[in-house]
Amino acid sequence: MMTRIAIYPGSFDPLTRGHEDIIRRSLAFADRVIVAVAVNSSKSPLFTVEERVDLLEAVFAGVEGVEIKSFSGLLAEFAQVHGASLVIRGLRAVSDFEYEFQMALMNRKLHSELETVFLTPDLNLTFLSSSLVREVASLGGDVGEFVHPKVEKALREKLSR
Amino acid sequence: MMTRIAIYPGSFDPLTRGHEDIIRRSLAFADRVIVAVAVNSSKSPLFTVEERVDLLEAVFAGVEGVEIKSFSGLLAEFAQVHGASLVIRGLRAVSDFEYEFQMALMNRKLHSELETVFLTPDLNLTFLSSSLVREVASLGGDVGEFVHPKVEKALREKLSR
Amino acid sequence: MMTRIAIYPGSFDPLTRGHEDIIRRSLAFADRVIVAVAVNSSKSPLFTVEERVDLLEAVFAGVEGVEIKSFSGLLAEFAQVHGASLVIRGLRAVSDFEYEFQMALMNRKLHSELETVFLTPDLNLTFLSSSLVREVASLGGDVGEFVHPKVEKALREKLSR
Amino acid sequence: MMTRIAIYPGSFDPLTRGHEDIIRRSLAFADRVIVAVAVNSSKSPLFTVEERVDLLEAVFAGVEGVEIKSFSGLLAEFAQVHGASLVIRGLRAVSDFEYEFQMALMNRKLHSELETVFLTPDLNLTFLSSSLVREVASLGGDVGEFVHPKVEKALREKLSR
Amino acid sequence: MMTRIAIYPGSFDPLTRGHEDIIRRSLAFADRVIVAVAVNSSKSPLFTVEERVDLLEAVFAGVEGVEIKSFSGLLAEFAQVHGASLVIRGLRAVSDFEYEFQMALMNRKLHSELETVFLTPDLNLTFLSSSLVREVASLGGDVGEFVHPKVEKALREKLSR
Amino acid sequence: MMTRIAIYPGSFDPLTRGHEDIIRRSLAFADRVIVAVAVNSSKSPLFTVEERVDLLEAVFAGVEGVEIKSFSGLLAEFAQVHGASLVIRGLRAVSDFEYEFQMALMNRKLHSELETVFLTPDLNLTFLSSSLVREVASLGGDVGEFVHPKVEKALREKLSR
Repeated sequence: MMTRIAIYPGSFDPLTRGHEDIIRRSLAFADRVIVAVAVNSSKSPLFTVEERVDLLEAVFAGVEGVEIKSFSGLLAEFAQVHGASLVIRGLRAVSDFEYEFQMALMNRKLHSELETVFLTPDLNLTFLSSSLVREVASLGGDVGEFVHPKVEKALREKLSR
Repeated sequence: MMTRIAIYPGSFDPLTRGHEDIIRRSLAFADRVIVAVAVNSSKSPLFTVEERVDLLEAVFAGVEGVEIKSFSGLLAEFAQVHGASLVIRGLRAVSDFEYEFQMALMNRKLHSELETVFLTPDLNLTFLSSSLVREVASLGGDVGEFVHPKVEKALREKLSR
Repeated sequence: MMTRIAIYPGSFDPLTRGHEDIIRRSLAFADRVIVAVAVNSSKSPLFTVEERVDLLEAVFAGVEGVEIKSFSGLLAEFAQVHGASLVIRGLRAVSDFEYEFQMALMNRKLHSELETVFLTPDLNLTFLSSSLVREVASLGGDVGEFVHPKVEKALREKLSR
Repeated sequence: MMTRIAIYPGSFDPLTRGHEDIIRRSLAFADRVIVAVAVNSSKSPLFTVEERVDLLEAVFAGVEGVEIKSFSGLLAEFAQVHGASLVIRGLRAVSDFEYEFQMALMNRKLHSELETVFLTPDLNLTFLSSSLVREVASLGGDVGEFVHPKVEKALREKLSR
Repeated sequence: MMTRIAIYPGSFDPLTRGHEDIIRRSLAFADRVIVAVAVNSSKSPLFTVEERVDLLEAVFAGVEGVEIKSFSGLLAEFAQVHGASLVIRGLRAVSDFEYEFQMALMNRKLHSELETVFLTPDLNLTFLSSSLVREVASLGGDVGEFVHPKVEKALREKLSR
Repeated sequence: MMTRIAIYPGSFDPLTRGHEDIIRRSLAFADRVIVAVAVNSSKSPLFTVEERVDLLEAVFAGVEGVEIKSFSGLLAEFAQVHGASLVIRGLRAVSDFEYEFQMALMNRKLHSELETVFLTPDLNLTFLSSSLVREVASLGGDVGEFVHPKVEKALREKLSR
């Protein structure tokens, strides 16, 4: 049995309970999960890449098999460099699926050994998204149920500036 | 590293190139894949369960890590009996996704350790389905591109009766 | 303020926790909710119309504003006879929505005063359906979480025959 | 400029105003439209193939460029026999699209010269379907707005038997 | 019977015939409908909030039960302040539904007493949207069929500047 | 038989193999296809309209029946000016379909003689889009399989600046 390395790419701006759930589920079939925090998103993020990596590292400190890395460039190349054969994606809704399907096929074209694996989050988390969390938090709503306490604290500090 | 056992349930009436593709892709993260051929489908099948199991065994003879079993009853229980922690499902289209999502959540309710993992088949196989193969074959169309030669032969024999 | 009468039509074969949830939510804007149990479904039901009406009456005994009736024929006419101006429908998924949209528009054509109102059930119930409950119960699975105890008992009796 | 022959296949059980609309729209780019009434549908139809062909011929009598034929077997072969290079399909909703997409790709596999062309019916007809018309008519509802008077008369006669 | 207060939130940039239709339909089950014009949209609007509120007030002048208010912040809090128990949303298409479903579930988390109620607009208005109206008007197209004459006049003045 | 003129509108930023495929398929039922390159897109394009027109002209040089034009304003008016009765659109996925459906209905309202015709690209091209090509190319990925060599060269020059 060889070591199975999976990549879970995303913006994580910020990490939600939905992301955490997918990462933990991934460990059911991957020996190592590399959470790949995207640098070069076109939209201006709320948290810098460094802040997002730091939050992920704080939340997953001590969880065996989970590593946090930032990445720019093609996912297919990042996977190759790290010896990963799997890409993990969470599926929440139809519109998700359409986009994810397109990305999975493109990644397979660019790196035929790369298999995209889709997981469904816990039912209670299917409606969550980073943008929804940012919106609710910026309007002063309570997001304590949707993010880790460390993320909630970071959101409060970021938005109070 | 523990042994990861996955179940790939379905009717396989008959096995298509799409199913074969998903089974082979599953071996990227599962040590053993149990193809579970459903007995108690409500609709009357073209091939008996025994014929469907035989065809799968013939096609996957010698492929390490793939086992063929028939099953009736709850998938969640079948998984428990065989020590499986993963359920494999192929995703082809939106309507697939809705149904699969529902089943994945139900299976998780009935057996919380069971993780459903979705894979996309090769782009060229996304339009394939067993029912489409049955329909084209029954109308005298050539399905050589869509099924294994052994399945094609079995279809010809079955339909000429 | 006039009395607002709503109809919640369906097969209820059997009543699920999802249906119960929608009925209770309807009382937020309707003074009376008539649960209309369809007689002339094409498919052969597990429970007779009388059994389904009885189960609904047992579960909603004492809940003010909820009435149970069987109906055959056009929903639009049934609504007119009972002075109802609203039709209630639960929305769970995309495929639901398509069908419901079609029915809502047809009902409006046939009875222009009839407004269809869509509600979403509790997130934990979005994956539930009567057919899934029937399937799980018939395979010996535990459906105690998905239906009222009275429905569970009726299912056990019906399926043990 | 060569003659462009299009096929519009379907069950037409019965012909609706939506089908009529699509046939008329097809004449914007096809010189001849062959309406192909499917014989071997699995479900038992309300009208026989002969009755359905007769109704279509009665409704399109005198409309230049429209021909009615029954067909069994593969659409791809039927197209080849009649020198058709286009298949016409109406698109009403997402679920339609999924199925149609699958059929279009299969037909292209079986007959690479066959192009499937999708049209949208008039907005007021997007909710119509033959099965909805059958259902409303069988329950005694007025379908005069949804079908041609000749179809309405045939429905009344058929259902009063 | 208590007074039922519903909120219909949106950007209304500008108000379309589709919005008007939904507002009128809401009066079938709500005693008062508060049209809540969102202030803090991220995108730069064509009309200011004041202009949008003024247009709505002009169009609904004299319509009993309809009130126009601007709002910023969380919808759940706005609802609580105004004693509203219902949120009204129009459903036009699948993509609408996905987003609306997500928002409905989030609002229920943030304010469990708040019920989201979905309505379908008149079939002839299902393709309308404010952005489509803005686009057509800015290109010099005639939008007289899609908006109230007062909105049409305001669009002409705004765009001629 | 009159001359059938079709318009294929888009941004073509840049032209992909998917667009090329749709243009070629259009010639199965249109005598002339006018590729209409949109000028006034809200988003800042990678290539100027002139560059996009030049690339299309280079790729389709010598292909009879294909013309390239830039356009601003309403598509319905552009069609009228050029005597076109058909609009061609490629359909790739559900989300495409929703948007396209909306545009088709709007164009029909604005110019009732204009028929929108949907085509599916080759299965191998269904996952392609201009934005995906831009993204992969900007990250240094190989897009040789997804675009014409002339487009690939132009992308390399544009992105190396």
